[in-house]
Amino acid sequence: MNIAIPIFERFTALDAVGPYEVLSRPPGWTVTFVAETTGPKRTETEMLSLSADATFDELPEPEIVVVPGGYGTRALMHDETILDWLRHAHEHSTYTTSVCTGSLLLGAAGILDGLEATTHWMALDKLAELGATPVNRRVVEQGKVITAAGVSAGIDMALTLVARAIGPEMSQAIQLGIEYDPQPPFDTGSLDKAPQAIVDLVRGVPELS
Amino acid sequence: MNIAIPIFERFTALDAVGPYEVLSRPPGWTVTFVAETTGPKRTETEMLSLSADATFDELPEPEIVVVPGGYGTRALMHDETILDWLRHAHEHSTYTTSVCTGSLLLGAAGILDGLEATTHWMALDKLAELGATPVNRRVVEQGKVITAAGVSAGIDMALTLVARAIGPEMSQAIQLGIEYDPQPPFDTGSLDKAPQAIVDLVRGVPELS
Repeated sequence: MNIAIPIFERFTALDAVGPYEVLSRPPGWTVTFVAETTGPKRTETEMLSLSADATFDELPEPEIVVVPGGYGTRALMHDETILDWLRHAHEHSTYTTSVCTGSLLLGAAGILDGLEATTHWMALDKLAELGATPVNRRVVEQGKVITAAGVSAGIDMALTLVARAIGPEMSQAIQLGIEYDPQPPFDTGSLDKAPQAIVDLVRGVPELS
Repeated sequence: MNIAIPIFERFTALDAVGPYEVLSRPPGWTVTFVAETTGPKRTETEMLSLSADATFDELPEPEIVVVPGGYGTRALMHDETILDWLRHAHEHSTYTTSVCTGSLLLGAAGILDGLEATTHWMALDKLAELGATPVNRRVVEQGKVITAAGVSAGIDMALTLVARAIGPEMSQAIQLGIEYDPQPPFDTGSLDKAPQAIVDLVRGVPELS
């Protein structure tokens, strides 16, 4: 299985690396980071760069597409290079997926028309403007299109994807391999669970979201 | 706060990027990926590279150190360049931390002598040989030394660290910002929870662990 993760300036690192860490593990699966041009792309904070090893032209028809989100998606909402690549890839893909605001790019490409989809909780309104029906769930499956909520949700999405594509045993083995037995020190990881003061703090400080 | 994440050939991407995604968010905190030489380092699977932006010499005394693990730690157990950097950094650090088999490097540097510590479940025996008392917990705090279990545990460790260094509100806000409300499709993420057949599968297929 060939998986492509398109990256761009100011994408969110964990959106891409969470699914990468899961999808790179099934024997025979290969993950390639792709971009308009090869080489390093800065993440959202500009404190880190990951490299694209192939151009969009070099990998036009991956079997799985995983689109990460991040501040950098805003500049791409009318970028026909990446949108055309997404449209063509989606025509041929086995699964087309996104994490966080990566779903806004799928929406901009017309891929979410009439489908339920999700994104980071702060961006759900934007999804509706792009033809999707936004739903507040962690992983949303609509046939071959799978969208995940904010940032860390990509890990859950990727485990769901492996279970569908290969089977539950492989997904469970990868979960154990990456010791994914989450024990966050707090329980404030969604809009439903966080106290209003914490929601206000995130809305007020751009670095936090 | 200056945070350094040392990387090397064949480190595990999520070990580093999980904590990065948390620790890069508090206003005023800066994360730098450091290595013996700057430039791209291949991750464990060799399917991805992240760049080091500074050399060890350029950042000798970060306030927080986060050591990721991965297959590449094996080649560094007697590498005095990284071990000397870790020893000096630890003398001056506010917190010295690790994820997964990153703790084996802390152990090799003598930093875990007499301390409880953890690592990936498959490497707990090795920790004992390095002077630590291995414990099977997700995050182990011993004064300023904090070690985390395998791969994904670095996210929990980093949220714990932010709560200690700044306060619970900031940690909770970051948890909401990265929408860390984990909902894995299975509950097999630790040795205690996984069926024996899944444990055997992970032990038998090198890519899975």
